[in-house]
Amino acid sequence: MSILVVGSVAFDSIKTPFGVAEDVLGGSASYFSTSASFFTDVNLVAVVGDDFPQEHVDFLQSRKVDLAGLQRTQGETFRWKGRYDYNLNEAHTLETHLNVFESFKPVLPDNYCDAEYVFLANIDPELQLEVLQQVRHPKLVACDTMNFWIEGKKAQLIKTLSRVDILLINEAEVRQLADEPNLLKAAEIVRSFGPKTLVVKRGEYGVLMFGEGSIFSAPAYPLEEVFDPTGAGDTFAGGFVGYLAATRNLEEHNLRKATVFGTVMASFTVEKFSLDRLREIEYSEIVDRYKKIKVLTEFADID
Amino acid sequence: MSILVVGSVAFDSIKTPFGVAEDVLGGSASYFSTSASFFTDVNLVAVVGDDFPQEHVDFLQSRKVDLAGLQRTQGETFRWKGRYDYNLNEAHTLETHLNVFESFKPVLPDNYCDAEYVFLANIDPELQLEVLQQVRHPKLVACDTMNFWIEGKKAQLIKTLSRVDILLINEAEVRQLADEPNLLKAAEIVRSFGPKTLVVKRGEYGVLMFGEGSIFSAPAYPLEEVFDPTGAGDTFAGGFVGYLAATRNLEEHNLRKATVFGTVMASFTVEKFSLDRLREIEYSEIVDRYKKIKVLTEFADID
Repeated sequence: MSILVVGSVAFDSIKTPFGVAEDVLGGSASYFSTSASFFTDVNLVAVVGDDFPQEHVDFLQSRKVDLAGLQRTQGETFRWKGRYDYNLNEAHTLETHLNVFESFKPVLPDNYCDAEYVFLANIDPELQLEVLQQVRHPKLVACDTMNFWIEGKKAQLIKTLSRVDILLINEAEVRQLADEPNLLKAAEIVRSFGPKTLVVKRGEYGVLMFGEGSIFSAPAYPLEEVFDPTGAGDTFAGGFVGYLAATRNLEEHNLRKATVFGTVMASFTVEKFSLDRLREIEYSEIVDRYKKIKVLTEFADID
Repeated sequence: MSILVVGSVAFDSIKTPFGVAEDVLGGSASYFSTSASFFTDVNLVAVVGDDFPQEHVDFLQSRKVDLAGLQRTQGETFRWKGRYDYNLNEAHTLETHLNVFESFKPVLPDNYCDAEYVFLANIDPELQLEVLQQVRHPKLVACDTMNFWIEGKKAQLIKTLSRVDILLINEAEVRQLADEPNLLKAAEIVRSFGPKTLVVKRGEYGVLMFGEGSIFSAPAYPLEEVFDPTGAGDTFAGGFVGYLAATRNLEEHNLRKATVFGTVMASFTVEKFSLDRLREIEYSEIVDRYKKIKVLTEFADID
């Protein structure tokens, strides 16, 4: 079952304590679709400028990502420049050039409008809603957002969330969106806005998933080398939604497995710049890390 | 099997966003022994001044904590004053009055010298070593420390660690002690100092336990109200060492269960000031939270 993703395709320039990368392939839709492509087909809606090279198009197509919805506009592709210190949990934005992304209007090719699994990456919540208005009968709508929209377009975001099934969001942003410091209370407030399931991303501390009367805690995969955290959240989302779409099962136990697959996918992305690590891996390596997280978390029950 | 604990008994004055407490019972040995007392007997070595009231003595004895090693010295008991903001992970010390604790020399009553399970709470590493020199044949030595000793007495601490089996330590302190930002690498460096097992405390993010070729991840118990985090680490240690001493089994699978019991005990302590929550609970409530952590972390394996 193919997934529809709407988000950004961008060039990133990144400096970490371990190295520097210039104008590498980035953007939420790139990370999401490459990650999800290990589980199912992806239809991508985004915009790039006329500077976007064929090699990136070829790469995405090699991952069976459908690019009929990738608009090409005169001008430059979205560019982001950022820096991380040793505390890799926090990105410092140095430059943001929206370029062609500034006037992005997501228009779905007609065959995308029957999408059953939809991921709305972190874009303007009004655009997210416009996308949903074009999708006829979604089975699952998952969505990301960020502090910028919580601060500037909270009402519009809450309107969009009323049509969202699963919200994936950072820990600090849940608290901000709910205006509540306790995470459990904040999660219930955000769930009351619409999403039945809330996936709270905590970086190196893993993920908490909140559902109806249930919480699931998954640790991050422990890594000796975290090289560049850019794209970890979108890669997580790709593994998470990708697994759900592939298995067509939205029960709690399957959402838990999807969370672990998302965790595994993110653990690869952070090991190299851009999508470089995802370009190398085989599905067997994904399975291997899934099993290692199983071992990492196991303990005996008591009577 | 009884445990020997050497640490502090103190009066704490605490301000959190949720309330204020003045001169309440605190100190590492108080938290540890009360927590461990749910699993086994405890022999306590510490010092108090002549201002220490009988009511606290009565309470500890009611928990079957042996106080033959509790020295009473002329002067005032150790006092700590601290404040927490909404970020409850970080304590701000306002005042520390060591008082009689400043000249504390741990002297073990002779029958304590056969202790098989020993917990060296966070005191001067030279005193920790003096304690070990009095214990004849320990089966398990667990130990805590803090940034103050890592900065001021690193060589002495490393000497003490060479005789320690399990080190319980905060995340930032592992990195500081190893002088290595990556936690996995830092853990291996610290394990090379002596402790075969390293329990890394991450506050609301739970615990990582590092052993020979193995890592175990346990989440914190999710709480709607975290009232005061003071004593959480020592309460964790009490549940952890208490369970190990009660079961007399130091295999990996039992260390994992002990980690979860430690997590459960800490989850109670933070719900009220001082030892107030531990005064109320029944063992059945401990079992109940253990099982809830089991449910919280469970997910299916894959083929």
